[in-house]
Amino acid sequence: MTRAMTMAEKMLAAHAGLDEVVPGQLVECDLDGVLANDITAPIAIKTVREIGAGVWDPTSIFLVPDHYSPNKDIKSAEQTKVTRDFAHEMGITHYYEQGCMGIEHALLPELGVVGPGDLVIGADSHTCTYGGIGAFSTGVGSTDAGVGMATGRAWFKVPETIRIQVDGELPAGASAKDIILYVIGQIGVDGALYCAMEFTGSTIANLSVEGRLTIANMAIEAGGKAGLFEVDDVARKWLEGRTERPWTEYHSDPDAQYKQVIKIDAADIVPTVAWPHLPSNTHPVAESRHIKIDQAVIGSCTNGRIEDMRAAADVLRGRTVDPNVRCIVIPATQGVWLQCVHEGLMDVFINAHCVVSTPTCGPCLGGYMGILAAGERCVSSTNRNFVGRMGDPTSEVYLASPAVAAASAVAGHIALPSDL
Amino acid sequence: MTRAMTMAEKMLAAHAGLDEVVPGQLVECDLDGVLANDITAPIAIKTVREIGAGVWDPTSIFLVPDHYSPNKDIKSAEQTKVTRDFAHEMGITHYYEQGCMGIEHALLPELGVVGPGDLVIGADSHTCTYGGIGAFSTGVGSTDAGVGMATGRAWFKVPETIRIQVDGELPAGASAKDIILYVIGQIGVDGALYCAMEFTGSTIANLSVEGRLTIANMAIEAGGKAGLFEVDDVARKWLEGRTERPWTEYHSDPDAQYKQVIKIDAADIVPTVAWPHLPSNTHPVAESRHIKIDQAVIGSCTNGRIEDMRAAADVLRGRTVDPNVRCIVIPATQGVWLQCVHEGLMDVFINAHCVVSTPTCGPCLGGYMGILAAGERCVSSTNRNFVGRMGDPTSEVYLASPAVAAASAVAGHIALPSDL
Repeated sequence: MTRAMTMAEKMLAAHAGLDEVVPGQLVECDLDGVLANDITAPIAIKTVREIGAGVWDPTSIFLVPDHYSPNKDIKSAEQTKVTRDFAHEMGITHYYEQGCMGIEHALLPELGVVGPGDLVIGADSHTCTYGGIGAFSTGVGSTDAGVGMATGRAWFKVPETIRIQVDGELPAGASAKDIILYVIGQIGVDGALYCAMEFTGSTIANLSVEGRLTIANMAIEAGGKAGLFEVDDVARKWLEGRTERPWTEYHSDPDAQYKQVIKIDAADIVPTVAWPHLPSNTHPVAESRHIKIDQAVIGSCTNGRIEDMRAAADVLRGRTVDPNVRCIVIPATQGVWLQCVHEGLMDVFINAHCVVSTPTCGPCLGGYMGILAAGERCVSSTNRNFVGRMGDPTSEVYLASPAVAAASAVAGHIALPSDL
Repeated sequence: MTRAMTMAEKMLAAHAGLDEVVPGQLVECDLDGVLANDITAPIAIKTVREIGAGVWDPTSIFLVPDHYSPNKDIKSAEQTKVTRDFAHEMGITHYYEQGCMGIEHALLPELGVVGPGDLVIGADSHTCTYGGIGAFSTGVGSTDAGVGMATGRAWFKVPETIRIQVDGELPAGASAKDIILYVIGQIGVDGALYCAMEFTGSTIANLSVEGRLTIANMAIEAGGKAGLFEVDDVARKWLEGRTERPWTEYHSDPDAQYKQVIKIDAADIVPTVAWPHLPSNTHPVAESRHIKIDQAVIGSCTNGRIEDMRAAADVLRGRTVDPNVRCIVIPATQGVWLQCVHEGLMDVFINAHCVVSTPTCGPCLGGYMGILAAGERCVSSTNRNFVGRMGDPTSEVYLASPAVAAASAVAGHIALPSDL
């Protein structure tokens, strides 16, 4: 009989071909997928070329030019070209450019390219997103991704797991984004350093898959190696029709050992905004109304899914953005984009005086599509508010939910939808 | 009794307070409007500040951040901020940012901000577009625009007029874009240097206003000071409901003197593509099929109006873009963008594997949203194909109509819709 294990431990053990693993153990695992984007792929590709044996499996490498695409400048055009040419040369089936474009971490779950139980590494910090559907996925350096592309294998130190149990009903206006901001506010940006964060409890069980992906996406902002959710009926329903692959569901044993168990009463989670310059610098929206803003961004791998678009549209419907605010809406994938067309959300956004971008990471990382001038402030549904993240080093980013970002765009300052 | 005059001469005379003018005469005119964009406005504003007397009329200055907006980078963010702050300080009523965004030369006619008989200068080459609705409008340097903003006046050398008379029926598949490419191919990029180009004839009379704006837009590509169309019932119908301002219609006298009269049989105008690196380097599409492309751009102040979107969609409906081509569709204004939503064109574009951008000049001038890597080729509905215009100096731009750009995107090489 093997030791009781957490779902993170079980997933790594299974991919290492072992019956059991213990935290701290180094294991070499078979991968189900390796991801890179237009910034990181060229470096990973260089590594693949140095190894000189081609790619391990052209159907398990995911290349998504999303950061500066459609090409922002000559440099990004060259980077995308390196990636595109490599994809064609190697016969990479999951190369996503114009035809089926989107932000990598929104696109791969939406298309069923990643699924529960998968072990995926990606040369992007927010690869941890797929934990929202029960995959063990994590960000790695571009060189590690290159080795993964060449060999289909990667080594891991088995992480300890922190169990975050959220029970009860969220207050009105609070969403999945507020849960993860609350958690990061409580434990800090290194509060889960190299740990798997396992989210459980009745509040989590009631969350949509979109909400779970939002939370998993920001596990890295607490230092987490992964942000994990067990697959339940909500997830199974969401997954049906997206993937025809069989998937594996891993559940933590009742007597698994956790580094820490954090119990949260959902009633304590109010609509939250993370002030500059750390995601942990959280404050209630209700105490942030004095902060005037120049821009609002609604989108990203954190909050660019259809549920997020609907939440923003519900606030913007019949209203207009403050004349001093630019409100930029970025559906995360072309699927979400077209769904916005079909649901009438595009009318809401344009009539509210927003602009709607083609899917891109764009302003989140200071790429393009809404860069801030000196001293400007943006409330954003993205995941990071580091110094200069969205533009000039003296600009400021405030992280919040799509609903709060939309309400702030209308109010001209950080605001609750109920303020309008 | 005054001398017989062309419509260009009449418009300049009227705005100079003179009964008549002759070509070559220097006249100082009252302006109806002065335009600048996010690239040129900061320089014009500097001039306004140096003059130190504020602006002549805050309701007659048009500021449209469209080239790098939503802000591409910190530099463009700062430029737009200078423009925005100036607009607010001076109470500029026609400042168009997020709320009512669009490419300047598509936006101003669409909103009725410019109208027939207006004399407008703009710090952008393609200000000549408004000749399509019978305005005398022309591009000037940013400093001249600044003086115009401060004083409401500008000097002109009265241009000679070249009359371009196109009669008969266009061959199947030929459009307004093909007319102007044909003309430029015939007379060269300096064929109308500092002349007003006056377009007449039965073919022109049968053109939509959108088509006339396309032709006027490219007058500058033949060196023209203006590209002029008389206001007729087609134009009047288009103008109704767009502007509540009274407008003035100028018609050339039957015995007006022209520098040159060019008579064209519409039957000679086949679908045309201008090869690199001049708009005058025209070839029939039918003789350009060997040219493989990497990208197609459908949009711009030349061809980003609803008629252009419909023409592209008619080709793309039920088809998909070649996997090796990126097809970027850019409706020129948010009005056009929303019209595309309502007419189901967005479904066509996305299902055809295009991306749809928020309104912007973007790739046309190598700004962003589709920059070319070394050696890449783009077929584009834009207006210039100079060396490095859309990216790397070794990249190539081929100018064509939206329908040809769309067909080429599907074929993977320059192609006619009828080839598909």
